[in-house]
Amino acid sequence: MEIDGHTRLVGLIAHPAGHSQSPTMHNAAFAKANINARFLAFDVAPTQLKDAVNAIRAFNMLGASISMPFKQAIIPLLDHLDQTAQLVGAVNTVVNHNGELTGYTTDGTGFVAALQDNGVGLRNQTMTLAGVGGAGTPIAIQSALAGLKTLNVFNINDASVKNAKHIVQIINDQTDCRASFYPLEDREQFHKALQTSDVYADATDLGMGQLVDRSLVDEPNWFHTNMTVFDTVYAPSVTKLMRVAQQAGVAHVLNGQGMLYNQGAAAFKLWTGQKMPQN
Amino acid sequence: MEIDGHTRLVGLIAHPAGHSQSPTMHNAAFAKANINARFLAFDVAPTQLKDAVNAIRAFNMLGASISMPFKQAIIPLLDHLDQTAQLVGAVNTVVNHNGELTGYTTDGTGFVAALQDNGVGLRNQTMTLAGVGGAGTPIAIQSALAGLKTLNVFNINDASVKNAKHIVQIINDQTDCRASFYPLEDREQFHKALQTSDVYADATDLGMGQLVDRSLVDEPNWFHTNMTVFDTVYAPSVTKLMRVAQQAGVAHVLNGQGMLYNQGAAAFKLWTGQKMPQN
Repeated sequence: MEIDGHTRLVGLIAHPAGHSQSPTMHNAAFAKANINARFLAFDVAPTQLKDAVNAIRAFNMLGASISMPFKQAIIPLLDHLDQTAQLVGAVNTVVNHNGELTGYTTDGTGFVAALQDNGVGLRNQTMTLAGVGGAGTPIAIQSALAGLKTLNVFNINDASVKNAKHIVQIINDQTDCRASFYPLEDREQFHKALQTSDVYADATDLGMGQLVDRSLVDEPNWFHTNMTVFDTVYAPSVTKLMRVAQQAGVAHVLNGQGMLYNQGAAAFKLWTGQKMPQN
Repeated sequence: MEIDGHTRLVGLIAHPAGHSQSPTMHNAAFAKANINARFLAFDVAPTQLKDAVNAIRAFNMLGASISMPFKQAIIPLLDHLDQTAQLVGAVNTVVNHNGELTGYTTDGTGFVAALQDNGVGLRNQTMTLAGVGGAGTPIAIQSALAGLKTLNVFNINDASVKNAKHIVQIINDQTDCRASFYPLEDREQFHKALQTSDVYADATDLGMGQLVDRSLVDEPNWFHTNMTVFDTVYAPSVTKLMRVAQQAGVAHVLNGQGMLYNQGAAAFKLWTGQKMPQN
């Protein structure tokens, strides 16, 4: 569908933004679903976040994707906040209804849907999560909302540990899941948690960039075959953690690609009301 | 060129905007010139003009097209104003250089270029212009700047007559062209002006919409063959005025399509630094 005078805009609001694959994913989906819209990425200076949010209204955009460093900062600029986004304390998707902006987070639903796509459900399961930052927080909240029985949260003792403990508190207060916090430095507790877990989710930076050769688990026998090992990293597509899990014969070894796809699909649904077509 | 994370946006800021042909023209030109940009039309509520202008900065847009009702209202919101836009008192094109916004008007250059495309120059010529509104004002100013010797300006005695007299004053003060104002109700003067003119430009609303059957000239013998008759209307493509001129055997009978194309081409050049490719 060619761009005409009625074509609606969706924008990524991030800094930086140029590397994003979202324009490719969403424009292909708009084309396939025959939706008259285009997705462009905008590298917005932090001092201009408010102007960018007002642009969603002024240009009557369908909405926006929100990425670093704006996922928290955007919250006070919106009109409404979805309950999960409120629990997570972050927004990655904005929907515009006649100038009223609502913030959602689809990162956690992306994680849960990626597991579902591989036949892995979370209801009454035990999960261990390492790292409670931008990715780990929505994973923890949404997994608890999806019916986890037990969640073991591990975080290193850095600036993020306060958030990790806060999220554990929120889950215990507001969901039926029993969550516990452990310092990631406690290797013995971490080993024990893995052995009793149905799912291990790694939301740390290990396995990518300068940390590409690092993994929290080096010994295959820390895993068991009847489990799922999920790494939020998607480049490289197979991390050191995943190789260790594969050596252990783990049933489901997944990278972050499925989560990325499903969080995008959930955003697409929010903007258009339609299921995102498969490419 | 597919949309990616580096694709730049250009927007029409107007109210309404959905009928605009500019997205079609400019996206075809971006594609042909291999420029990684897209043009979308935004129907901006008058109360949100300031937000729309700030969006040009926040989204690091190449710039914008400005149409009714914002051509004057946008001026105080810009950082710089091109000299012609200042004389005209209106902006139809905004260029963004690192957050600094400059306003231009390309309507008048579009008119002059459309005549040039048909081998009609204005230097040392005499022109009669009827209607000094949104289209007539830049036509008057740019034609004077292009070297007209004499400009006869006719306007009806409505709210726009003050602007018409003001534009005549500006031309006499700031260009070498001698301009005179006449009331359009003075049919005898109008007839006389046409007979001594090289170019007649009609920038009234006659000939389109509910006024499709109207023309300021009904008698072919008011024209002479060795002249140019230009109607700013482009839909319908042949107006009643143009039919009368054709009956008179007028050398060049032109509608507003060439002006529209050339004002767009001039805007394209301002945004991209490149000549707009022909389709």
